[in-house]
Amino acid sequence: MSFTLGDLDAILAERGAASPEESYTAKLLSRGPNHCAKKFGEEAAEAVIAAVAEDDKALAGEAADVLYHLLVVLRARGVPLSDVMAVLEGRTGQSGLAEKAARRTSG
Amino acid sequence: MSFTLGDLDAILAERGAASPEESYTAKLLSRGPNHCAKKFGEEAAEAVIAAVAEDDKALAGEAADVLYHLLVVLRARGVPLSDVMAVLEGRTGQSGLAEKAARRTSG
Amino acid sequence: MSFTLGDLDAILAERGAASPEESYTAKLLSRGPNHCAKKFGEEAAEAVIAAVAEDDKALAGEAADVLYHLLVVLRARGVPLSDVMAVLEGRTGQSGLAEKAARRTSG
Amino acid sequence: MSFTLGDLDAILAERGAASPEESYTAKLLSRGPNHCAKKFGEEAAEAVIAAVAEDDKALAGEAADVLYHLLVVLRARGVPLSDVMAVLEGRTGQSGLAEKAARRTSG
Repeated sequence: MSFTLGDLDAILAERGAASPEESYTAKLLSRGPNHCAKKFGEEAAEAVIAAVAEDDKALAGEAADVLYHLLVVLRARGVPLSDVMAVLEGRTGQSGLAEKAARRTSG
Repeated sequence: MSFTLGDLDAILAERGAASPEESYTAKLLSRGPNHCAKKFGEEAAEAVIAAVAEDDKALAGEAADVLYHLLVVLRARGVPLSDVMAVLEGRTGQSGLAEKAARRTSG
Repeated sequence: MSFTLGDLDAILAERGAASPEESYTAKLLSRGPNHCAKKFGEEAAEAVIAAVAEDDKALAGEAADVLYHLLVVLRARGVPLSDVMAVLEGRTGQSGLAEKAARRTSG
Repeated sequence: MSFTLGDLDAILAERGAASPEESYTAKLLSRGPNHCAKKFGEEAAEAVIAAVAEDDKALAGEAADVLYHLLVVLRARGVPLSDVMAVLEGRTGQSGLAEKAARRTSG
């Protein structure tokens, strides 16, 4: 996979610094965290609907919207994506592969 | 950022193949796409609340939950994460950096 | 309280029978249950945000939107509001007032 | 329809005054508006899923949950249900029946 969530976040950082007239991301951010959270909530509802409606083409698009708007919300609140990924890494490490690997090695 | 969404997805692929007794991911998947979508919707609501409540520590955790459950929904429906990332890459390419880079080169 | 959810539902029944050009309700219904569910989900997200943002004037408006769109979803699926109220009456009867009244009588 | 939203709200008023050990409503309210909003958001997501999954029996139950948790959120924030109904009455009056009645009278 060449394009990553980190790549998208870097693009949002650049666009967020543009003027709200030039950039949709900057426009969202200019309206504040609550507005960004609202848009994220709407996209999440649409992703749920696409999944339950078994519309997989729509689901890929809505999932993309969810990821984009989640990054916008994080940026609106000043929470770095790296904090989120650290939470995920910590959780998966605790109860999953790393643990299993550790057991294998120690066993 | 060392840990990526692609890494998480690879972990889910492995765990999804475990038994529902061993793995929470396998348990979720065994209950079908609608149940997975429900859990995703719940986590999205919690992320919205954390953002609006200005609880940034909670927001990082809830965003992690959103990402995890979104990947589970995609997997439950058989939609590859690479399809979602391709949508994002296509969108950002159209109106953003690539365009800007193209302008720079041509200028 | 003079105006009730039943009154609103009766109005929706009338409007739903109008043409989509004349009536927003008819327009929503003409787009099908999934579209109606999407709108409902959006309004629910906005109600959550208003509640957490402690914006009580907005909350009253968003709660009104939630009630309206919930009735539209029920109508789009052909589920009578009376079925929903019967569920609520059954639940509250089981564990609440009726039980309490029974205790008072028997005491 | 014998049982109304106003009846449910009156029951919640009584139960909310009980101890959190005795009453689920009191327990929810004791955890504050954000927790109540979270539960409402979860139920809204489940109603969306039931509608899209065309599971009408589940939809009636989830719609009941949405109504109950919406009233709990309003109560947690101290917003009277009558304010919400007044918004609905005002809206429907403006663009609907009252308007139609006015046209008939004037015609």
